[in-house]
Amino acid sequence: MIDNLIEQIKNKNSHVCIGLDPQLKFIPDEIKNEVFSEYGPTLEAVAECFYRFNKGIIDATYDIVPAIKPQIAMYEEYGIPGMTAYKKTIDYAKSKGLIIIGDIKRGDIGSTSTSYAKGHIGSVEIEYNGEKRVFNPFDEDFATVNPYLGSDGIKPFTDVCRENDRGIFILVKTSNPSSGDFQDRLIGEHTLYEEVAKKVSEWGEDSVGKHGYSDVGAVVGATYPEIGKQLRSIMPHTYFLVPGYGAQGGKGSDLKPYFKDGLGAVVNSSRGIIAAYTKDMYSDCGNYAEAARRAAEDMNKDINENALN
Amino acid sequence: MIDNLIEQIKNKNSHVCIGLDPQLKFIPDEIKNEVFSEYGPTLEAVAECFYRFNKGIIDATYDIVPAIKPQIAMYEEYGIPGMTAYKKTIDYAKSKGLIIIGDIKRGDIGSTSTSYAKGHIGSVEIEYNGEKRVFNPFDEDFATVNPYLGSDGIKPFTDVCRENDRGIFILVKTSNPSSGDFQDRLIGEHTLYEEVAKKVSEWGEDSVGKHGYSDVGAVVGATYPEIGKQLRSIMPHTYFLVPGYGAQGGKGSDLKPYFKDGLGAVVNSSRGIIAAYTKDMYSDCGNYAEAARRAAEDMNKDINENALN
Repeated sequence: MIDNLIEQIKNKNSHVCIGLDPQLKFIPDEIKNEVFSEYGPTLEAVAECFYRFNKGIIDATYDIVPAIKPQIAMYEEYGIPGMTAYKKTIDYAKSKGLIIIGDIKRGDIGSTSTSYAKGHIGSVEIEYNGEKRVFNPFDEDFATVNPYLGSDGIKPFTDVCRENDRGIFILVKTSNPSSGDFQDRLIGEHTLYEEVAKKVSEWGEDSVGKHGYSDVGAVVGATYPEIGKQLRSIMPHTYFLVPGYGAQGGKGSDLKPYFKDGLGAVVNSSRGIIAAYTKDMYSDCGNYAEAARRAAEDMNKDINENALN
Repeated sequence: MIDNLIEQIKNKNSHVCIGLDPQLKFIPDEIKNEVFSEYGPTLEAVAECFYRFNKGIIDATYDIVPAIKPQIAMYEEYGIPGMTAYKKTIDYAKSKGLIIIGDIKRGDIGSTSTSYAKGHIGSVEIEYNGEKRVFNPFDEDFATVNPYLGSDGIKPFTDVCRENDRGIFILVKTSNPSSGDFQDRLIGEHTLYEEVAKKVSEWGEDSVGKHGYSDVGAVVGATYPEIGKQLRSIMPHTYFLVPGYGAQGGKGSDLKPYFKDGLGAVVNSSRGIIAAYTKDMYSDCGNYAEAARRAAEDMNKDINENALN
């Protein structure tokens, strides 16, 4: 699956991933009014707003970005209707040829991780009376995974990746202010995130594709250029999913060390793109979706000019 | 919320939590045949099997156990229909007066953790045209939380706990074989799990209830009595959610150090109870639900006699 992502990145000459993390406050009034007048103040209304909003963004950007990353928490907040909007967003983005990175940050003990892996990036077989059907319940191409439970919580994900040609990005160093509480603590001479990075590199050794990168990737926040450099050398064959660009403070020039020969990282922006229409600099755009397209173009230009040169 | 759990524990004289982690292989044929003949081999069929199975267990045990812990991964494996069965299980167990511990192991950066917290143990307000409605989308009483992202990923959960009188159990030391990969690594003189334990104790200081325990609990595997003792002293006001009893090897006598003056831990068993009917020792029970009741009684006896005396 990493090869598919890389091919999209090359074809579209873009390293930008759009974080589809809708919040009610970002939904333009024209969508809200239409939906709420039909559904009233319900979970279903919010879910339908999210889906329509996402669809607009996808329609306006699918030809210029390789991937989207819906953050499942934003949908889970609104219960089953919200989760349904998450699934519909995946299906619609897939129909437009986009790579889907499910930002689910799951992780559990072995057998339980197997369930998460099958439900999100794998498949389940259901048999009755000699009839067997296979389902891909959520059907993301990649999922993010939390490493706190260790190898036996990760292996089910790597197994499912291999069987279904999918990928994962394991949290190594996150972009939030208190990521250092545990991730930066020293274990002997190395930080915990370095120890996790070494494992991530090992876990991915068996699944290196034709472009030299593994289906087992790493989440490395955009907010630490020095750490990016260090992690690039610990994990030479690991693709980085880089959150924290834009709203969280990361910029193109910070990201130079995350790349190697023009590849190596897919950089996510959520608010900076999906809520671009609320910013003065995009006020001349006709609507939120056009503003998102312009913001994605600007971000791509920043990365291509300042991170890759 | 911890007070509610403790009152149920006292009233029922039971420290047992039933892990409602259904798997298709554990569903008795009578349920499977009835459901599959109606729904065919579909995700909806599996979801309905899970719900009916859970309902049977709940009906047979709600008067003798304080809590259930559905493992959301088992449901998520079957997509939206699976999640719907998770939600229906919560609602049904609540109607029987049980405390619900959602084993969701979520955790993310601040604003995203807020979404998880509101969706699971909190509430969302939706307003349209002057009408405001409040929903509790999943409505668990407690949720398990992963600490890898640090304080700012935890705070939204503790805030939501306070606002909604709910609780969390933060992963400290899990019961799986490779939990040691990172959790046991030494940071100076202390292991990572000890460092996490210190934080958990701090995070819970503001929400200690009338029985001396906090709404911020800890997950501590049943498989390490020595560690249980050590963690009990690092976290004197922290209730422990203890997985790993039974199938994973933990037994009552191992759990002495987890308790203090007859309280301090709620011990979970999943397979050992919900699949008890497949074991020889429960073959005289009329059905799977009766076997589950007997297994829950036996487990409770083991804990009351060997862990609490």
